[in-house]
Amino acid sequence: MIIDVPADSGYGRENLPYGVFSTPGTTPRVGVRLADRVIDLAAALDDPLFAVPSLNPFLARGKECWDEVRARITELVDGDVPDAAVHPVAEVTMHLPFDVGDYVDFYASEHHASNLGRLFRPDAAPLLPNWKHLPVGYHGRAGTVVPSGTPIVRPSGQRKAPDEAAPSYGPSRRLDIEAELGFVVGTGSRLGERIPVSAFEEHVFGAVLVNDWSARDLQAWEYVPLGPFLGKSFATSISPWVVPLAALRAARVPTPVQDPEPLPYLREGDPWGLDVEFSVRWNGEEVSRPPYREMYWSPAQMLAHLTVNGASCRPGDLFASGTISGPGKEERGAFIELTWGGAEPVRVGGEPRTFLEDGDEVVLTATAPTASGTRLAFGEATGRILPARP
Amino acid sequence: MIIDVPADSGYGRENLPYGVFSTPGTTPRVGVRLADRVIDLAAALDDPLFAVPSLNPFLARGKECWDEVRARITELVDGDVPDAAVHPVAEVTMHLPFDVGDYVDFYASEHHASNLGRLFRPDAAPLLPNWKHLPVGYHGRAGTVVPSGTPIVRPSGQRKAPDEAAPSYGPSRRLDIEAELGFVVGTGSRLGERIPVSAFEEHVFGAVLVNDWSARDLQAWEYVPLGPFLGKSFATSISPWVVPLAALRAARVPTPVQDPEPLPYLREGDPWGLDVEFSVRWNGEEVSRPPYREMYWSPAQMLAHLTVNGASCRPGDLFASGTISGPGKEERGAFIELTWGGAEPVRVGGEPRTFLEDGDEVVLTATAPTASGTRLAFGEATGRILPARP
Repeated sequence: MIIDVPADSGYGRENLPYGVFSTPGTTPRVGVRLADRVIDLAAALDDPLFAVPSLNPFLARGKECWDEVRARITELVDGDVPDAAVHPVAEVTMHLPFDVGDYVDFYASEHHASNLGRLFRPDAAPLLPNWKHLPVGYHGRAGTVVPSGTPIVRPSGQRKAPDEAAPSYGPSRRLDIEAELGFVVGTGSRLGERIPVSAFEEHVFGAVLVNDWSARDLQAWEYVPLGPFLGKSFATSISPWVVPLAALRAARVPTPVQDPEPLPYLREGDPWGLDVEFSVRWNGEEVSRPPYREMYWSPAQMLAHLTVNGASCRPGDLFASGTISGPGKEERGAFIELTWGGAEPVRVGGEPRTFLEDGDEVVLTATAPTASGTRLAFGEATGRILPARP
Repeated sequence: MIIDVPADSGYGRENLPYGVFSTPGTTPRVGVRLADRVIDLAAALDDPLFAVPSLNPFLARGKECWDEVRARITELVDGDVPDAAVHPVAEVTMHLPFDVGDYVDFYASEHHASNLGRLFRPDAAPLLPNWKHLPVGYHGRAGTVVPSGTPIVRPSGQRKAPDEAAPSYGPSRRLDIEAELGFVVGTGSRLGERIPVSAFEEHVFGAVLVNDWSARDLQAWEYVPLGPFLGKSFATSISPWVVPLAALRAARVPTPVQDPEPLPYLREGDPWGLDVEFSVRWNGEEVSRPPYREMYWSPAQMLAHLTVNGASCRPGDLFASGTISGPGKEERGAFIELTWGGAEPVRVGGEPRTFLEDGDEVVLTATAPTASGTRLAFGEATGRILPARP
């Protein structure tokens, strides 16, 4: 069939994101999205590389293969795609698109880091001394990265408010989101090897949306001195479609001026800022539009930093940007910032709201410009809050 | 053949640890160690579960299977083991015994946490307010967990001494070890499910030695506010033999008195303290004997905490205790403590030494009591420092 692509689809032939899908009664396998259709790649290209429930084998093949497959798909969708390989997106179930190796979360938005600094350390400089010298990051839990749509059970744990003498156990009372962009490693690296900023495109396959759900009360009590742990590890949602870097060429922009100049291993010849516009919808109402182009550190700098000590990477490693926040109030990618620690509620459904309540749904979406002047879509990272387990 | 087991072997029939080995020209597969022999389990038990280069499929089978296989191996080694299934340990290569899912590192020694507190925050209370309420932990890099014997390339990165105005890039000048005990998850748990302290034995298969190599200068500059990252992520060595929990029954001891009493989800009916005695050898000289029985938090409490927020576990997840330090100076499991931040060198090879130099070798070993009054051995976690890459 000829797949019709409306101009405002977001999933035109300049996008062609990859995911893992199944139809009723079939096993999950790799597909590519065009408009409101999913193309079964194993069937359409007659290639067993895609007849598996994970992108990892394809990721491991490297950039030459990614480029070649993208060219073949482009040629395919310009013509008549075999009917048997085409499924309406409404009729498929999407799965986790890749097996996550290690998951690293950065903290690359100056606005976000400054806001959190002001909230948590009101008497000190908003940014810590290391922040402008390196992309601060930490490892998160890879095993709890879940696909969009997975319900998010409210986590329980230890919480201690400043005015309480001792911690108590119970459900989080300050459940939050973090709107982030995540990068999927394709070609790994060996132990002891570094990935320079200039080799970013050789190693990173594509990008997904990330909602790094955060229990702020658990996090505040636990995080010194070793960083966030249970406040983050209960779930991290990602969008089901991996947008290839090759689709993001027209979205590349310079990163903000970096002052002081970073050490040589972090300097970029060809900057990897990205003009990706996010939207955060809370129970259907847009409450924020975080602009990725404002991020201080680029993903190429993140990967160069991550590996400068010789740490190896594997296909399927995921590293995320950290919360995306712009300078404006309605550009903040976490509710703790948007509501200033809960002190300045926002109106959702006509009610003043601060942190997430049971039954709430958060939907992250994002778009980026294409060469033809349209915008491509990243797919959604969605999650609804279920009550804590007894 | 009848395998002869000397009384002081450390690898008698009460131990029977599992590993992954290969002989020249063969593919890695699961073996069990008895005295100075490795028994090829796939061959000896005629079971394809063990004809794979990882313990993970066996781990995923669960405790009933682990107990049954241990009984079969015990019966086997009491008799005549087929010659073709037996290899001298000196003739095999050992590999990473399992595919590491998520790697979590705790901070469960009160002596270690207090020592580091005194070193890093000399004007404050040595323990932070949360320390006695929960086992502090964080996620490490699973992809750089390496088997004993893997050379450790000195990591490079950003370092800034307190008297320096700006960070510089270069090889770590404060390369250290952390002697730890690691626990290997067998039976996982689902998202949203908790593993109570009482279910520890149902979920954890066994234990390995862990050397969590640490670049203290990289760590000191990077670790606020999100915790250790590049200071730890370059390599973590583990011993090749996984000692099953079933072999550690006679090593169980009460944990130290916990005051304040932990919240109910952390209370143990049947404590999981372990009388495991470590030895740290630096270029062949024993410099420390960290006593695991001193650890404040038990591994059952660590796992209960790790999952109390509903985080799921997978077969092959590894969680380690954090540095084991006892009250005595020669019981400290990290050189930063042993040499008090470098101020009190120890003598190694007749020379005063503080942190690791290129060419240094560190060997961790450990033993635990058995019911018959002998001691079982954990195998070694060994690593030699190679110079930083240019």
